[in-house]
Amino acid sequence: MENMLSVWKTKPKEGLEIKGAPVPNISDDEVLVKVRAASICGTDLHIYKWGPWAQERISGNLPYIFGHEVSGEIVDAGKNVKGVSLGDHVSAETHISCGYCPQCRTCREHICDNVKILGVDTNGAFAEYIAIPYRNAWVNDKGIPHWVACAQEPLGNAVHTVFDGEVAGKTVSIFGMGPIGVCAAGLCKLAGADKVIAVDMNEERLKFAKDFGADLAINSGEEGVDAKKEIMDATNGLGADVFLEMAGASGALRQGLETLRPGGRASILGIFPKPVEIDVTNDIVFRGISINGINGRKMFDTWYKAKSFLPKIGLERLVTHRFRLSEIEKGFGVLLKKEGMKVVLEP
Amino acid sequence: MENMLSVWKTKPKEGLEIKGAPVPNISDDEVLVKVRAASICGTDLHIYKWGPWAQERISGNLPYIFGHEVSGEIVDAGKNVKGVSLGDHVSAETHISCGYCPQCRTCREHICDNVKILGVDTNGAFAEYIAIPYRNAWVNDKGIPHWVACAQEPLGNAVHTVFDGEVAGKTVSIFGMGPIGVCAAGLCKLAGADKVIAVDMNEERLKFAKDFGADLAINSGEEGVDAKKEIMDATNGLGADVFLEMAGASGALRQGLETLRPGGRASILGIFPKPVEIDVTNDIVFRGISINGINGRKMFDTWYKAKSFLPKIGLERLVTHRFRLSEIEKGFGVLLKKEGMKVVLEP
Amino acid sequence: MENMLSVWKTKPKEGLEIKGAPVPNISDDEVLVKVRAASICGTDLHIYKWGPWAQERISGNLPYIFGHEVSGEIVDAGKNVKGVSLGDHVSAETHISCGYCPQCRTCREHICDNVKILGVDTNGAFAEYIAIPYRNAWVNDKGIPHWVACAQEPLGNAVHTVFDGEVAGKTVSIFGMGPIGVCAAGLCKLAGADKVIAVDMNEERLKFAKDFGADLAINSGEEGVDAKKEIMDATNGLGADVFLEMAGASGALRQGLETLRPGGRASILGIFPKPVEIDVTNDIVFRGISINGINGRKMFDTWYKAKSFLPKIGLERLVTHRFRLSEIEKGFGVLLKKEGMKVVLEP
Amino acid sequence: MENMLSVWKTKPKEGLEIKGAPVPNISDDEVLVKVRAASICGTDLHIYKWGPWAQERISGNLPYIFGHEVSGEIVDAGKNVKGVSLGDHVSAETHISCGYCPQCRTCREHICDNVKILGVDTNGAFAEYIAIPYRNAWVNDKGIPHWVACAQEPLGNAVHTVFDGEVAGKTVSIFGMGPIGVCAAGLCKLAGADKVIAVDMNEERLKFAKDFGADLAINSGEEGVDAKKEIMDATNGLGADVFLEMAGASGALRQGLETLRPGGRASILGIFPKPVEIDVTNDIVFRGISINGINGRKMFDTWYKAKSFLPKIGLERLVTHRFRLSEIEKGFGVLLKKEGMKVVLEP
Repeated sequence: MENMLSVWKTKPKEGLEIKGAPVPNISDDEVLVKVRAASICGTDLHIYKWGPWAQERISGNLPYIFGHEVSGEIVDAGKNVKGVSLGDHVSAETHISCGYCPQCRTCREHICDNVKILGVDTNGAFAEYIAIPYRNAWVNDKGIPHWVACAQEPLGNAVHTVFDGEVAGKTVSIFGMGPIGVCAAGLCKLAGADKVIAVDMNEERLKFAKDFGADLAINSGEEGVDAKKEIMDATNGLGADVFLEMAGASGALRQGLETLRPGGRASILGIFPKPVEIDVTNDIVFRGISINGINGRKMFDTWYKAKSFLPKIGLERLVTHRFRLSEIEKGFGVLLKKEGMKVVLEP
Repeated sequence: MENMLSVWKTKPKEGLEIKGAPVPNISDDEVLVKVRAASICGTDLHIYKWGPWAQERISGNLPYIFGHEVSGEIVDAGKNVKGVSLGDHVSAETHISCGYCPQCRTCREHICDNVKILGVDTNGAFAEYIAIPYRNAWVNDKGIPHWVACAQEPLGNAVHTVFDGEVAGKTVSIFGMGPIGVCAAGLCKLAGADKVIAVDMNEERLKFAKDFGADLAINSGEEGVDAKKEIMDATNGLGADVFLEMAGASGALRQGLETLRPGGRASILGIFPKPVEIDVTNDIVFRGISINGINGRKMFDTWYKAKSFLPKIGLERLVTHRFRLSEIEKGFGVLLKKEGMKVVLEP
Repeated sequence: MENMLSVWKTKPKEGLEIKGAPVPNISDDEVLVKVRAASICGTDLHIYKWGPWAQERISGNLPYIFGHEVSGEIVDAGKNVKGVSLGDHVSAETHISCGYCPQCRTCREHICDNVKILGVDTNGAFAEYIAIPYRNAWVNDKGIPHWVACAQEPLGNAVHTVFDGEVAGKTVSIFGMGPIGVCAAGLCKLAGADKVIAVDMNEERLKFAKDFGADLAINSGEEGVDAKKEIMDATNGLGADVFLEMAGASGALRQGLETLRPGGRASILGIFPKPVEIDVTNDIVFRGISINGINGRKMFDTWYKAKSFLPKIGLERLVTHRFRLSEIEKGFGVLLKKEGMKVVLEP
Repeated sequence: MENMLSVWKTKPKEGLEIKGAPVPNISDDEVLVKVRAASICGTDLHIYKWGPWAQERISGNLPYIFGHEVSGEIVDAGKNVKGVSLGDHVSAETHISCGYCPQCRTCREHICDNVKILGVDTNGAFAEYIAIPYRNAWVNDKGIPHWVACAQEPLGNAVHTVFDGEVAGKTVSIFGMGPIGVCAAGLCKLAGADKVIAVDMNEERLKFAKDFGADLAINSGEEGVDAKKEIMDATNGLGADVFLEMAGASGALRQGLETLRPGGRASILGIFPKPVEIDVTNDIVFRGISINGINGRKMFDTWYKAKSFLPKIGLERLVTHRFRLSEIEKGFGVLLKKEGMKVVLEP
């Protein structure tokens, strides 16, 4: 069995281990993907740093190969595989759903009761090869470079959140300008939003937001800046039609809700370290607000939409760093220093 | 000008004042309604007791006639009045909307930016006569007695909340068995809900819920009762499809969210005395939950639906007390002792 | 290999053949179901009679076992089978979808591009045993008798059509009182429809409709009966909110559209022998009508709803005839004479 | 009373009459608009030519001033007027709804039972002044020239049709490249449609479509062109996700439906001279197609969206001819010769 380079989480503490491993075997329902590029997600950073979430969620899975944002080429396929072919360029839907729970049976595979997450519950993409269920392989246009295509998984999160409701002709506030937030800003503009208001405390990230089309970028961390006032001013006192929470910050959630117009929609993708105090009466009930929790990507509506926007959105602009897979520690170093946006690794 | 009996809030403290007053004049766009029955809403109780909400909201309006749940007969009409006629039996939509704000112009009159509330911002229904804009007059079938028809305003709140999404074939948990919660339980069953789970801490109110059709009544105040466990057991561990918050209690909101299935819908009508701490990550985001704030009644979709269910739901069972309008203090006395459900006053 | 009784379509002409056959082998993804009851669908009648549809659609499949409305017990299961167990009572979703076409990947499995129909494209249920993919096995409550449960497949068609939009509080006209139409009438009432108007030309079928809860039954074949006028009168000149076409008759379609209120919803399940002339301008465009084509059952939302309504709707009332499977010719005889509603066969 | 130039339909035959008339009086609920620009709609052409529709619809209204696509300035206002002010630049929503019919009371004012159409049932915009209900006055940004703003009424039709469902990431076929169809093509692209396929038989109009962003323009009138084949090829054999009928031609409707993917949406704005034969079974039922009739503009959701897209879409490109109001005959001459797209008249 061929040996391959791979990146393992072996010990319950900060760090990773690069080592050789056998190329994975595939089952009848799987394809073998030769990884051409993999990007580092915030989740990977949690795994690397071994924070509270990782300790609780991953401990039982060690040792294993992590990473899940991937683009590569199908080089082998099990006998039941349908709809994809050898040579196809593919990315992976990270949620491996069971197919038979009540969620899976009612168009909610993305919140499957028995879901396994690629690179979290199974061996992942920081390797030369990865085995994935053929149903999770998404075929990319070959014109999209692998180092860009791997980053469409977060684009997918943005697509799911943005298109959770209507944005054409709407004013949209987006809090949190990580890669997903920046993609969301870009998508809103491409989909005809009237005005996109980006909020973050990091000037660099706000520049990305502007570059992707945000009409207004508010640095809420800046002395004297009142994000609420700026949003209300920018919406003639009405408030935004749509609010996308992509910061996972209690203050962002509250400000976003407070600046939402009556009848507005809030879609929350952010993950909050602890419970959030919300003025339910005034910020939800009296103003007839709708709040939707967003998890993963709709399987596979989201991917079809992402495929459409991928050639338009200029995703390559988010890829600030590219390293060899063997240099993965450098990649984590960049992110630990909060530099750059998307770090791509190429085997 | 004819004199009429009327009930006034004159002073910023607990209590009311019964006195004579001129029958109201009507404008070109108003109808004069001879009040046949008016019921006491929780809002009226707040006004009577002069609690914090009343102090903040009403102080500037004194003295004025309060009350807004009404059924009566049109006895006069301004020259612009259309669609209703002298002799019609009518109830009143309480929200007097402006008609030109962005909400009114986009099918959200019920959350109008400039709304005035009947009996809160204008003279109300605890009187022999009331003037209301003809657009707010809702014609009742004459077969419905006035003492029942006046209570359809809270039925309308229930209709708005229940039909905020689908209930046919769904499991629905309802927290809070005041008149609106009980109506909601009844509506869910009439609309084909699979299982209705009613939760309250008051055994009497739970009896009403059972009587209106709740399949399961949980007394969450009872020693040793774990409402969450009971709901999960009753739903085979899946959780409810729909959760209706009608208690305005932080514990209810949290328990309702925690027992909602992935992808479920929460519709919140309850008013909370203070902000609520919510585990947004686990109870909204990861499970793809939708939360909708519900205010008032949709104008007038809700009323059409309420008209359909009014003859079926047995609303008269909620009317536990009937008094002459002049005995209104007795009515408040009943409610202050937390006895009965709906108190109706007849001039 | 055990031998079993089975009913075959062997020749391209009217009729069937009863004969012995080996009990089917199952693949890794299939379950073997011991058939306890199977009912005759209109499709089976077409196959029996070898009409134009059958000639075009089935010719290439002969010889094969037909029948698809089934209830039975799982007696064997392939190694990949999940979510169902030996001994489970199950019915079958008839559409065997591919799982990887654009429809299957976007929550539209019921209109899969590569669908195979059980008992049409594969061996079916008029036999002692049938092999079905485990994903198509729907677990029934054991309290539902097999001879009733087999008939839930048409109930499912009714569920799909009725709940294609809202019916609570709505007036619904239904044209065509076959088993699906009668189920639809019952469902509408159970789901809180305000008024259900059933239209057919067969007095017996209209009696079923009334028995299932229709408020008004119009015999459009009767001398002097003007269905349009009756519907408009019954809706105070407004028209029905919802129109369900279950007759597959051009006149029904036109009358249903003409009597739909502005903004109303038409859901069409009926199959028409030839194109229909429609006054698109007046009956669709000017009145803002929505028309939805309905095919099969949503997989598996429809089945969940059907499960909820199955114990309430009294489906057993539709089963007018029960025969041994060996007497299947008698069953077709009944239907050819247009007697009865649902004919059930028990091996 | 001041005299003004105005254009009348006085006689039941082809033609018009230009004459002096008193400036209209306004009621308490109306504003007086000094017309700065009015454009000629297809409806106006029917009135001019006195075709069958005009004969049936208008005969009882003669003599009156026609025209309804307008932009002007409010110069006077009745005492009940709210939300608009003297000096505002406004266009007119053409549908004067009653406000109290079941449609108006359930967010369907655009299909009001008692609607009056400006310039059809009331005196219109081909004049120096026009009186309109203040609720029908839509305030324009002053940065939009009047000669462009008047043409936003057809833009509104396009907005209503396009946003009748989702277009972001979708393939959209549009049949009929009149001004509305061209606007629809532009809107689809601005709102993130994946691919817009424009179909017409007029090469000039297809050029406009391309100019507004259509990805593919099919001249279905050209020798050897098979529009169906081209659409299926352009969608990889899947069919379009969305089909917009803006031609009012039976062949267009049929081809559009035939090339719609399973589960697709058809929105029909076109007006057909006579009933259309539709293969309901194959083109609606089996493929689970949804068809929506589109009338007018949603009041006022459509206008808010149109306001957002107006500065982006380059509507001025559609205005091919500008004349003085007194030269209106020249304008009709252009349209009778099927030259140009939008003809604007300025008093």
